[in-house]
Amino acid sequence: MTTPDWIAIDWGTSHLRAWAMSPAGEVLDRADSECGMSRLERADYEPALLELIGPWLPSVGKKCPVLACGMVGSKQGWIEVPYQTTPCHPAGVAVAAPVASPRVEVLICPGVKQDEPADVMRGEETQIAGLLHAQPEFEGVICLPGTHSKWTHVQGGEIQTFQTFLTGELFGLLASQSVLRHSVGRDGWDEGAFLDALHATITHPESIAAKLFSIRAGSLLLGIGGATARARLSGFLIGSELAATRPLWQGQEVAVIGATELAAIYVTGLEALGAKPRFHPGETMTLAGLLIAYLEWSHRDNPAGQESVELG
Amino acid sequence: MTTPDWIAIDWGTSHLRAWAMSPAGEVLDRADSECGMSRLERADYEPALLELIGPWLPSVGKKCPVLACGMVGSKQGWIEVPYQTTPCHPAGVAVAAPVASPRVEVLICPGVKQDEPADVMRGEETQIAGLLHAQPEFEGVICLPGTHSKWTHVQGGEIQTFQTFLTGELFGLLASQSVLRHSVGRDGWDEGAFLDALHATITHPESIAAKLFSIRAGSLLLGIGGATARARLSGFLIGSELAATRPLWQGQEVAVIGATELAAIYVTGLEALGAKPRFHPGETMTLAGLLIAYLEWSHRDNPAGQESVELG
Repeated sequence: MTTPDWIAIDWGTSHLRAWAMSPAGEVLDRADSECGMSRLERADYEPALLELIGPWLPSVGKKCPVLACGMVGSKQGWIEVPYQTTPCHPAGVAVAAPVASPRVEVLICPGVKQDEPADVMRGEETQIAGLLHAQPEFEGVICLPGTHSKWTHVQGGEIQTFQTFLTGELFGLLASQSVLRHSVGRDGWDEGAFLDALHATITHPESIAAKLFSIRAGSLLLGIGGATARARLSGFLIGSELAATRPLWQGQEVAVIGATELAAIYVTGLEALGAKPRFHPGETMTLAGLLIAYLEWSHRDNPAGQESVELG
Repeated sequence: MTTPDWIAIDWGTSHLRAWAMSPAGEVLDRADSECGMSRLERADYEPALLELIGPWLPSVGKKCPVLACGMVGSKQGWIEVPYQTTPCHPAGVAVAAPVASPRVEVLICPGVKQDEPADVMRGEETQIAGLLHAQPEFEGVICLPGTHSKWTHVQGGEIQTFQTFLTGELFGLLASQSVLRHSVGRDGWDEGAFLDALHATITHPESIAAKLFSIRAGSLLLGIGGATARARLSGFLIGSELAATRPLWQGQEVAVIGATELAAIYVTGLEALGAKPRFHPGETMTLAGLLIAYLEWSHRDNPAGQESVELG
């Protein structure tokens, strides 16, 4: 394998993902680990990173630039990188983290905050920057499903407003740790049950806590299976999120950025409700956003080198 | 201490509570343990019970009747006691559990199910029976806050319909296991924050998952304290439950049966929204309901003995 020109990192609460990259943003190799923020103390970040990307690094020579986004820049992260504030372009200036190793230079992208109502993101802004790089004229609504789903309105190349939903984390807690864990299967899917639950929640979003318990009652009294219960739980929770965001998607085009499987569920739900969702793979958007950060850093730090990259 | 005439048991998912009782329903002594259903296999129930109530039992002589309600009668309980089906009087016929010891006779009260929409209760029916014993003419709405809050409509001495909300379990999971655990204090209270959150959720119940995340954002960006975050979480979740049950409480009297601290929060919320809640202590209602079950069993099993109790 050729030594990468730079390394892209998506470092979230539960996972650390790394890509060895060419100057033009092609993926040369990939690696990941479970060393997410929730498992790390401050001093653990550099060893965790070097363990994962060490095989890609030359033993001597110049430092390899590592561009990272996500919770790695939060208060519990490697260093706290100050947020940008809305309205703002999603791609801010990456900040260098303290590093002992002579082999890497680590740069962390800032998250974005909104003052009123108070809200925060770390990682999604990089995906939004990636989308805007691919479609500079993009204006409208972006949905980013995940542990903490984001809905944002982009105009004039800037994030204008955004809102975060605890949907994915609720799903995980309810499926694995609540009384519903006896009813909800670990896998399997029932599209009809998902859509029924979605429509029921759009119509009566206020009774979400009763709908959640109905999954348990349905499994006890009606023998509803694990795949159906899983789809129903997803339909109730995504339905609640879509009931709240209806003014953003009703009859509109919506860019959906996320992991393929989860994003497909949102696309199905949005289409069933009359919106026009368009899927953009989360990994592609993250890498495009980190490439922008790399080029920006490269240009800032070393204008001549950057020029030769662009011409090379 | 005098040997109890009978023993009352409230055996739920997380706790086992016992009271040594006089024939007329006075509490002679009390004991509790953490041996709830979630920690027990079927064979563990009898030893867990005898460990807790052993000191109250005479070493020889007749068996002491033990009347129990709650999850002890569920599929994962000591024995599965079939549900009564709505509409029904809340006090059903207690069923004997298999017991090896010659010192006790264990009788478990049936729960109540509703076929459409599917719903279940185990334990709350005994509290409702207790309320109806104290107020035989009671008709109207009863709210039973808890891990799985119940709202029920009682008419003609029967439970007509009911609905369960996962509110308490959501609070516990979110406060202790979600990202909100970094923001929500273990104790403390902020009444203004509770009421603000309650009103915000009654007005816009659809955006519950965004309101939940706003607690984290408020703590990160605005430095909101743990007590305020705790009250806000409670206000959002109880507000969601009250938004869904509005037709039951709006301008109405509501009997609230529950643990004092939690019930007081519901009473505060209901009063703020214009309902007329009236608090009934959960323990008193449980013991009144179990007394009815004891007298019914006593009369059925031993009509002469029962007569002397009633005259004695």
